[in-house]
Amino acid sequence: MKLYVIEENGAERICCMDKTGMLCRLKDMGADVGDMNELIAKMSPEQLGRLEIPDDAERIPLEKVKLCAPIQPKRDVICLGVNYKEHIEETTHVEDFQHKEATVYFSKRVSRASGCGDVIPSYHFVDSLDYEAELGVILGKSVKDISREDAVSAIFGYTVINDVSARNLQFRHKQWFRGKSLDGYTPIGPCIVTADEIADIQSLRITCKVNGELRQNSNTSLMIQPVLDAVAELSQGMTLEAGTVISTGTPGGVALGMKPPVYLKSGDVIECEIEGIGRLVNTVG
Amino acid sequence: MKLYVIEENGAERICCMDKTGMLCRLKDMGADVGDMNELIAKMSPEQLGRLEIPDDAERIPLEKVKLCAPIQPKRDVICLGVNYKEHIEETTHVEDFQHKEATVYFSKRVSRASGCGDVIPSYHFVDSLDYEAELGVILGKSVKDISREDAVSAIFGYTVINDVSARNLQFRHKQWFRGKSLDGYTPIGPCIVTADEIADIQSLRITCKVNGELRQNSNTSLMIQPVLDAVAELSQGMTLEAGTVISTGTPGGVALGMKPPVYLKSGDVIECEIEGIGRLVNTVG
Repeated sequence: MKLYVIEENGAERICCMDKTGMLCRLKDMGADVGDMNELIAKMSPEQLGRLEIPDDAERIPLEKVKLCAPIQPKRDVICLGVNYKEHIEETTHVEDFQHKEATVYFSKRVSRASGCGDVIPSYHFVDSLDYEAELGVILGKSVKDISREDAVSAIFGYTVINDVSARNLQFRHKQWFRGKSLDGYTPIGPCIVTADEIADIQSLRITCKVNGELRQNSNTSLMIQPVLDAVAELSQGMTLEAGTVISTGTPGGVALGMKPPVYLKSGDVIECEIEGIGRLVNTVG
Repeated sequence: MKLYVIEENGAERICCMDKTGMLCRLKDMGADVGDMNELIAKMSPEQLGRLEIPDDAERIPLEKVKLCAPIQPKRDVICLGVNYKEHIEETTHVEDFQHKEATVYFSKRVSRASGCGDVIPSYHFVDSLDYEAELGVILGKSVKDISREDAVSAIFGYTVINDVSARNLQFRHKQWFRGKSLDGYTPIGPCIVTADEIADIQSLRITCKVNGELRQNSNTSLMIQPVLDAVAELSQGMTLEAGTVISTGTPGGVALGMKPPVYLKSGDVIECEIEGIGRLVNTVG
């Protein structure tokens, strides 16, 4: 099931997409849940899959709605750093990125995640704004100390995340937290695809275009630490609550890796897309 | 006002300490709020200060109660790294710590903060468990883009935090997040002292003892980035919500700085204390 969150009369409402590409409100299908975190707490992907769209339920065209982030992360988003081989190679000039012994984990504050169509703000103290198309993983239940095999059933679904980064802040403060955490730096969307709909999460094309120019063009098969291993490792000693969002790192092709870097500027349109999930489009304000 | 959270019949209850050192339930003083985040949302330190303890309200001796963390952080705790001069000096052998251009900010996942008296768990994959006594700052309102002067009124109160760290994980994963975020690694307490009770937050003695031996012995006057500057800088471009917990870095004297390091082992008793706030005591399990 593809789950979208739309804005209606100032409130957020969860919809699913029917076979014809139209949206139908989940409450019209007998699941009257408030937000995505509540839905995740109450229903598994399998239970969701058994819901049926009544014939008389209203169908809403996607192009008529204002999309919100499909989930508002309750805690900081957990991110993987330099998790694609070619992203390490393009950043050999960045000492901070040359660390291949173990997966790099950091976090990103998200007071409010942006949706598809929202503006990425410009800040006067950021001179090196960058994009990072990433596969987002949403956990469906609270887990701790799980194996790679157990991680399969812990995943609720997948989404696209643009891990927007202020490179000057990221490196000035040594730890990456602040440069990743400014308001508006976490667009998520356009939807969450429940885990049952993705046959192999490690074989999806992932791309990012800036003003139509293809900058990132890779495949989730090239991740160094695959999704299930990341979930399992993170869960060792650390509870991952239902609704946890994990962003699994970006492939090569970011502005930082260009010689010279072509950072984002006001008006730029960024399209992050993952095969089978969708395209997340945002403009720099 | 000194605010404690105690466990009573499986529930948590906020108390304040009266002039004789006895605890009195806030609900007996006409403030029936659920948890500390709710209290912060509803009342300022000034409003709290106007509450009176009725003569017939029950007084509870501190030694009779089970203390909980005075606040359960809603999002990850924001931490400052190497923010005392002598802590930089003792760790000259740690390349990661030699970065003095700007304040280091990182975050620490806290699914559940431990209270005074709780056990710090041992994990089989951690071989270098360390303590870090820190001053914790709790924000009383949601702020963004504030000045150092505005930060004064944004602070609800102060507490003691032990920023427990697994040094092997902290450095293996390059970014510090995972090594700081294991379950049980964030003892907070014993109480929150509201901001109005601290005349000068930058002149408090801060110490840590391990099994009675004085390991850290410093003063908040030696912070490189003082509290108000940290709050103001963090708020630039990033919303800090009411209830945000900021841990302001640790002085010299951690195990990592000893030659050779004497890391924590099962049974060790750690006492982190800040003048005017209190002593946070935890044992390694």
